[in-house]
Amino acid sequence: MTIAEVRLTPVLVADAPLLNVQGVHQPYTPRLVVEVVTEDGVSGLGETYGDRGYLAAARPLARTLRGRPVTEVNGLAGLAERVCGGAADGAGGGGLRGVRTAGKLRLSVVSAFEVALLDALGRTVGLPVHALLGGKVRDTVDYSAYLFHRWAGHPGGGPVDDWGAALDPAGIVAQARRFVRDHGFTSFKLKGGVLPPDREVAAVRALAEAFPGSPLRLDPNGAWSVETSLRVARELAGVLEYLEDPTDTTERMARVAAATEVPLATNMCVTTFAEIPEAFARRAVAIVLCDHHYWGGLRNTQHLAAICRTHGVGVSMHSNTHLGISLAATTHVAATLPGLDHSCDTHYPWLTEDVVTERHVFTGGALTVGDAPGLGVDLDRAALAALHRRWLADDGTLRDRDDAAAMRAADPGWAVPDLPRW
Amino acid sequence: MTIAEVRLTPVLVADAPLLNVQGVHQPYTPRLVVEVVTEDGVSGLGETYGDRGYLAAARPLARTLRGRPVTEVNGLAGLAERVCGGAADGAGGGGLRGVRTAGKLRLSVVSAFEVALLDALGRTVGLPVHALLGGKVRDTVDYSAYLFHRWAGHPGGGPVDDWGAALDPAGIVAQARRFVRDHGFTSFKLKGGVLPPDREVAAVRALAEAFPGSPLRLDPNGAWSVETSLRVARELAGVLEYLEDPTDTTERMARVAAATEVPLATNMCVTTFAEIPEAFARRAVAIVLCDHHYWGGLRNTQHLAAICRTHGVGVSMHSNTHLGISLAATTHVAATLPGLDHSCDTHYPWLTEDVVTERHVFTGGALTVGDAPGLGVDLDRAALAALHRRWLADDGTLRDRDDAAAMRAADPGWAVPDLPRW
Repeated sequence: MTIAEVRLTPVLVADAPLLNVQGVHQPYTPRLVVEVVTEDGVSGLGETYGDRGYLAAARPLARTLRGRPVTEVNGLAGLAERVCGGAADGAGGGGLRGVRTAGKLRLSVVSAFEVALLDALGRTVGLPVHALLGGKVRDTVDYSAYLFHRWAGHPGGGPVDDWGAALDPAGIVAQARRFVRDHGFTSFKLKGGVLPPDREVAAVRALAEAFPGSPLRLDPNGAWSVETSLRVARELAGVLEYLEDPTDTTERMARVAAATEVPLATNMCVTTFAEIPEAFARRAVAIVLCDHHYWGGLRNTQHLAAICRTHGVGVSMHSNTHLGISLAATTHVAATLPGLDHSCDTHYPWLTEDVVTERHVFTGGALTVGDAPGLGVDLDRAALAALHRRWLADDGTLRDRDDAAAMRAADPGWAVPDLPRW
Repeated sequence: MTIAEVRLTPVLVADAPLLNVQGVHQPYTPRLVVEVVTEDGVSGLGETYGDRGYLAAARPLARTLRGRPVTEVNGLAGLAERVCGGAADGAGGGGLRGVRTAGKLRLSVVSAFEVALLDALGRTVGLPVHALLGGKVRDTVDYSAYLFHRWAGHPGGGPVDDWGAALDPAGIVAQARRFVRDHGFTSFKLKGGVLPPDREVAAVRALAEAFPGSPLRLDPNGAWSVETSLRVARELAGVLEYLEDPTDTTERMARVAAATEVPLATNMCVTTFAEIPEAFARRAVAIVLCDHHYWGGLRNTQHLAAICRTHGVGVSMHSNTHLGISLAATTHVAATLPGLDHSCDTHYPWLTEDVVTERHVFTGGALTVGDAPGLGVDLDRAALAALHRRWLADDGTLRDRDDAAAMRAADPGWAVPDLPRW
């Protein structure tokens, strides 16, 4: 079970013009596919962010892994610290996860290798990844519909879809209805921070009217002041399941949390283990949304969930644009967590392209936890090659995700707003 | 990989007359050996406390496990809560782990099943248990010599050994020298709470003189007041690696911790996840000594270590009298923990009996982390049967560990002292 080869394939994946506080999704978003091949010829797959900084950090780690046992995932973070520390500095990223540091980037790279090793190990010994994580405690994992204010098309051209624009409550409800029809979702998350808060409150109210009793979340990515956050919380008390990152920084989140009964979730002020003690001591958050890429993999996700459980904090799953490999990984680890009381986020339904041979299919808004060896997904090598060719052909403008740059195609004077914006 | 059968074998194991604050070890101590057999005929071994309460809780869990997959260890705690909740109430135990609750007892039972399932799974797929826990980050695990004030023999008769009595500094140093000679230990823990504090301070000083530079610990099991704890800490500052549970309760530990630079370790005020938030918030402890039985198994041990790491608290391993199955389990999980900066405790060298075919051998005070499938230990069925016959033959007086009762054989008026004793 020795690693013979590690293949890194950066790709560009068609994305939709989804709006957020920083700007708009680019027509194509970079991802990195990691393939680990053992001496026995077994392959394992992983996936993470694809910006150049991640790729630069992944390369030395890939080289170092050759000749090592596929079983040794606990040592990956320490290994990465030794071999790719410097390479990670100053790299890009989604920009929506608080301060960028080399350590965070490194953990996101480690996550892809950890998943690939677990996939290869599972395939070698005939166990699903969830069994390598101590076994599932549920047979299906619930996901929520991830609703976005969006344009009909990318301002500078790019892939086209048939969703049309959604820039008002009616548009958001129509989008939600299509998600329900196609995937059966029973909970909804609206990405906010795009329109003035009152208009986003109106959209959430429209969702509550259209889907009475369904859990609803609103996530403005830290766009609001403490005062605005509390005003929205008052207006949506009893309507929201939780409010996600209404304001940025642990200090401001703690001030909001102290003055509202609406639970606050975060994927911005608690994105590393180091950020936990202060945030939990100040009771800044009620729910941590884990992204296994951010946290360094599936085993760290389990540790995070145990920490949250210990401190009476809820846990669920964050999503950034991702392919079917990471969705499989999220599903496996989510299946192993006791006390996963909130449906998980996923951008997956927005994506029309994938590198796995069979797309994941949501039934009643949930994915079934597979028992096939490893992650249970297979690489579509032709699709991977096509997306990689797109990456190779790019002149460099899309190799780092930059939602503000994409926004400037429509609004040349656009800059990422200072927070709080409202 | 379905569980076909679960065998529970209570045993009585010869023990030495080791003294502690509650009394003295009985001539024989109860342990419970759990054997899980899969439909493919693969066996997995686990071990835990053997008092009647544990056995009573283990029985319904054993019945429920038949027909379940050997892979599903994350669900064991929830399962135990459902099937053996009531049975656990009012059960016995070592008495040195804070308040006794049904939940704690249940987790100790779960731990044996978790280890047995991991052993069976590892044997089935050809992986060592550490690989099922994410892989080792070290090839050897350091243990410390566990020194005890003791008598030459049990007052009421029982197994005899050639250690002789150790009731003063010279006796403790002689004991330590034999441990070094036989096992190569390079760190030492003295069980305290037996003699007046000044005499135990003198013993530690004698150890420091005999083994200059070696890490030394003293553990009076909460026998002292805050004032006595601080006096000892002042006297042994610069001599002790850490002071373990000088006083009982989180509140008193916090008061000691606030007034000394000597790190405090605990195995009494933090023995469950629920006890962590208060203890950590009050900075009551610098090191948590994990006992995988207490904490519900090896995966929970990893979670505990992650929690400690997150909060800047150290971690190491506690020991209660145990056989070679649990020593193997401790070694596997300890091998997977980053930041294990203190050698682990073990009573193992005191025991002359075991249920595994080959005794563990310490080299330089360390055990090598094996790569054989599962735990890497095999059951000596003849030895198990003999120790079980001893349990069957017992009239009930030894089926619950009771150090105070054993002490009354020498001192009929003995009762467990109220704490703080000094």
